[in-house]
Amino acid sequence: MRIYLDHNATAPLRAEVRSAMLAFLGPPANPSSAHREGAHARAAVEEARAEVARLIGTAPAEIVFTSGATEANNLALRGGGRGGIVTTTIEHASVLETARALADDGVRLVVAGVDSEGRIDPVEVTAACDAGTALVSVGLANGEVGSVAPVATIAAALRDRGVLVHTDAAQAAGRVPVDVRGLGVDLLSLSAHKMGGPPGIGALWVRRGVPLRPLLTGGPQERDRRAGTENVAAIVGFGVAARLARTELAAAAAAAGDLVERLWRGLESRVPGVSRNGPAAGPRLPNTLNVSFAGCAGESLLVLLDLAGVAVSVGSACAAGAAEPSHVLRAMGRSVEAARAGLRFSVGAGTSAADIDRVLELLPPLVAQVRAGAAA
Amino acid sequence: MRIYLDHNATAPLRAEVRSAMLAFLGPPANPSSAHREGAHARAAVEEARAEVARLIGTAPAEIVFTSGATEANNLALRGGGRGGIVTTTIEHASVLETARALADDGVRLVVAGVDSEGRIDPVEVTAACDAGTALVSVGLANGEVGSVAPVATIAAALRDRGVLVHTDAAQAAGRVPVDVRGLGVDLLSLSAHKMGGPPGIGALWVRRGVPLRPLLTGGPQERDRRAGTENVAAIVGFGVAARLARTELAAAAAAAGDLVERLWRGLESRVPGVSRNGPAAGPRLPNTLNVSFAGCAGESLLVLLDLAGVAVSVGSACAAGAAEPSHVLRAMGRSVEAARAGLRFSVGAGTSAADIDRVLELLPPLVAQVRAGAAA
Repeated sequence: MRIYLDHNATAPLRAEVRSAMLAFLGPPANPSSAHREGAHARAAVEEARAEVARLIGTAPAEIVFTSGATEANNLALRGGGRGGIVTTTIEHASVLETARALADDGVRLVVAGVDSEGRIDPVEVTAACDAGTALVSVGLANGEVGSVAPVATIAAALRDRGVLVHTDAAQAAGRVPVDVRGLGVDLLSLSAHKMGGPPGIGALWVRRGVPLRPLLTGGPQERDRRAGTENVAAIVGFGVAARLARTELAAAAAAAGDLVERLWRGLESRVPGVSRNGPAAGPRLPNTLNVSFAGCAGESLLVLLDLAGVAVSVGSACAAGAAEPSHVLRAMGRSVEAARAGLRFSVGAGTSAADIDRVLELLPPLVAQVRAGAAA
Repeated sequence: MRIYLDHNATAPLRAEVRSAMLAFLGPPANPSSAHREGAHARAAVEEARAEVARLIGTAPAEIVFTSGATEANNLALRGGGRGGIVTTTIEHASVLETARALADDGVRLVVAGVDSEGRIDPVEVTAACDAGTALVSVGLANGEVGSVAPVATIAAALRDRGVLVHTDAAQAAGRVPVDVRGLGVDLLSLSAHKMGGPPGIGALWVRRGVPLRPLLTGGPQERDRRAGTENVAAIVGFGVAARLARTELAAAAAAAGDLVERLWRGLESRVPGVSRNGPAAGPRLPNTLNVSFAGCAGESLLVLLDLAGVAVSVGSACAAGAAEPSHVLRAMGRSVEAARAGLRFSVGAGTSAADIDRVLELLPPLVAQVRAGAAA
């Protein structure tokens, strides 16, 4: 049995999600069709939209389904304001690279930094806004180190300043409460596959009245905000995942927090030279633990753990394979070597205390092995 | 048992496709992950890429997976050339609306017309190109009336003129031979769900050396040409659908042609005042029949057929619900009333001669009923 501790890269599909999807994997289902098959698909899409809306406390009409959070983030940044962008150094690649692409086209871009625990200073972000700023994009939770950003504070400070506030909540939803009214933002991105739904589907929540230029033009789907035949099975799966995320949030967060605490305490007591990357207290993702073992490349540990049956990650999956060390750890002031030492554990539905105990058994000798190799 | 004659809107998922997808609907599968689960997903994506490449006679590295043909068409038009666009009046909304959106931003746009059977004159298209033209986009097959465009002739005439030639082959692939080298184009769009694969996945073929600006930026997926976590199950399904489309092409096209001929002859002999929209001979989709019954709104017949258990369509699903009559039939010179009379039958895997015979039994009294209602 493999132990999968990489839920922040992608979570296993929940069994309930899979069952719901199966009914739509076979019969033809184009919601734009006028016949019965089309109407059935249309109803399923709208039911799922209502569930996704409920997860973040909003109205279904404000949900635009996209092919994932990457598209949602691109839609927010490229289709939201026309003007300057303010973001932070620890954003997901789909925000940072998009902001940089827009900067290459002449948009003024300011990238605010973070402290050594990956925390964003709301004053720094709002101070970076000027009259030319059209959009501020700050991720609600960082998937690599687990810090949760003061998005509500930022949005409150920018209220009535004519700046759109966008937050990528892909890593937050289903792990911490996400309420668009409480956050006070204008645009919010979601991903299904981080919460046990299928990959290939996400959403951008667009506050009513916020103008949005579509990124994909064509048919009139999604109220003219996103063209393309709806991925009905995936949308249905997203709806079920959103319902589970909402109804199980408190219990799932508590369970994840216990598992992460068990892992951290175990590592502290068994492995010399271990340190935590990201906030040890305060607002953070309960399911995420990013650690460094001094003198150990995270990549080496990842390979050995993988061989031993445990899946973890270094940095974000979306940057994996790249030769660069985590941009998040670098932004937190880590040296290149320290950033390369980062190893991320992320738990979720299905992770057990026995899984954690097995990792605590496996890791100490592997760390020793890597250190011995590095010293040789 | 429903009779589904709307394969051009979306085809039922092939059983082989479904089975292949099931293995990837459950276990976590992010191809960017460095562990075994990631490697397994990566291998599956590359196997599917090879199958999709094989379908159109090209190399896997030139295939960029997208969320569907709408995204592929947007990527081609928005990310292909920088300059004027030439297209035709009968293109899919994802080409026409995108071209119009670019024209709104200042791009010079020429939209070439078609004849009364929906045929494109290659001379008109190439003559519309001038020194400022960056891209010509002509759909390979029209999904509403079945005409197949002289794309190879257009591409040959434009060779060495510095114009990129794009073709949307979403409705052609799996129904007529599609070979990118024979066509001589630079960019070609595909959709999985028109050929028995899942919705939510498509591809843009990009000829080696053709520069492309990505539409979705972020992670390094798809060789930096399309960011976003890969929809592995859908890609795997697309691969299987592409293999079936390739190996079954000749037999499927012959069977579809026979069914459509049976339907057309039956209608001609049983229903007075029926006429065909689209080419009766020459290059055309074997599976598509668009007809008008004089004095009958297609919408009314669609509703009655639906109640009687038969799914068909009027115009393109991507424009359904719109009050406007088919832009394709209008472009072919039909009056608004005649365009509203159009009814499309599209067959595919699973359609039987008995299905056609049942429709031939049902339709004459329904046409008489609608005509009586219209006269009353």
